[in-house]
Amino acid sequence: MKKRIPHHIGIIPDGNRRWAAEHGLDKKDGYSKGIDPGFALYELMLAEGIEEATFYGFTKDNNKRPALQRDAFTDACIKAVQLLSHRDANLRVIGNVNSPAFPPELECYANQQVLFGAGKINLNFLVNYDWKWDLQQALKTGSIASQGIPRMDLIIRWGGRRRLSGFLPVQSVYSDIYVVDDYWPDFKPQHFYDALEWYHNCDVTLGG
Amino acid sequence: MKKRIPHHIGIIPDGNRRWAAEHGLDKKDGYSKGIDPGFALYELMLAEGIEEATFYGFTKDNNKRPALQRDAFTDACIKAVQLLSHRDANLRVIGNVNSPAFPPELECYANQQVLFGAGKINLNFLVNYDWKWDLQQALKTGSIASQGIPRMDLIIRWGGRRRLSGFLPVQSVYSDIYVVDDYWPDFKPQHFYDALEWYHNCDVTLGG
Repeated sequence: MKKRIPHHIGIIPDGNRRWAAEHGLDKKDGYSKGIDPGFALYELMLAEGIEEATFYGFTKDNNKRPALQRDAFTDACIKAVQLLSHRDANLRVIGNVNSPAFPPELECYANQQVLFGAGKINLNFLVNYDWKWDLQQALKTGSIASQGIPRMDLIIRWGGRRRLSGFLPVQSVYSDIYVVDDYWPDFKPQHFYDALEWYHNCDVTLGG
Repeated sequence: MKKRIPHHIGIIPDGNRRWAAEHGLDKKDGYSKGIDPGFALYELMLAEGIEEATFYGFTKDNNKRPALQRDAFTDACIKAVQLLSHRDANLRVIGNVNSPAFPPELECYANQQVLFGAGKINLNFLVNYDWKWDLQQALKTGSIASQGIPRMDLIIRWGGRRRLSGFLPVQSVYSDIYVVDDYWPDFKPQHFYDALEWYHNCDVTLGG
């Protein structure tokens, strides 16, 4: 039997603050620990032939957090994109640039696809994303802001919570959702392999 | 500590066909077994003081199934609403009435709130629902078709699948999702109590 592989995986890298607190660190110091796991997962996805992945960076809701945490997760997102620019991905940053919370460093990548290197994977990154903003763009332009991002087959959420937290409401309608209890900074390759194995055994119905 | 109770619960009563197949019945015969569990759950929700519940009836996608199955799930939805009209609920049927798949018997309840008896709970019922249709109504009327249905705090899905299958994409953005492995016709009160207990122990962040 041919292995059923998801074309497009959504990644919710949650638990950075809880990880920091459990390690006696300040909550804000959890975010920088999320960059290496992201690149480790990137390499695994390339090796498995995953065609597209969407990472949940930060949201408008997240901006309600204390300023030190906001600075820390914004910096982590900027650094992740800068590191990615030396890799082989087609990058699409989706988020509301008409807000002071959108990092100016990432404006050049926003709401378009930018090709890096050999473009082996489509990588979408949600930065200052807001599900309401995403949907309401349809009222202004005729299509949602995330129109360029296709349906997600599999969503993997780290940190144990069993919810979507506003992650791409349109693209997640048929997604199979796999939850890893470990926090994102404790990412292990086995999490990814377990998610793929689980997905392989899910049936696809698309509601039919 | 005061128990944290969800205001609004979404119900995905899945697994009727798999239940029928495992009991040596024709797949279509599973749907009629879903009515009694619905009323059992209705009584439990009243007893727990749940203010609102939304049941996933059938969708546009489901209409791709064989005609005998379509007739069976449509009949089950009609019967459920007719039985409910003798109870104490404020009913709202949401679905696309401009389609031959919408049962004429339910047109009088469609896309408005109809009060039955003492109106102890708001009960929404999705009939010939389609998430795309729901969202696209905003382009025509300025608001989504399910505008009258508020955010869901907890979604309980029977039948083991870990996905939303197009269930109210806007109202589910922050919902905690609890999956029961048993099929819906095998509903037991303990499923509901376990879901409430689990929900009680989830923290609420609304993305913040």
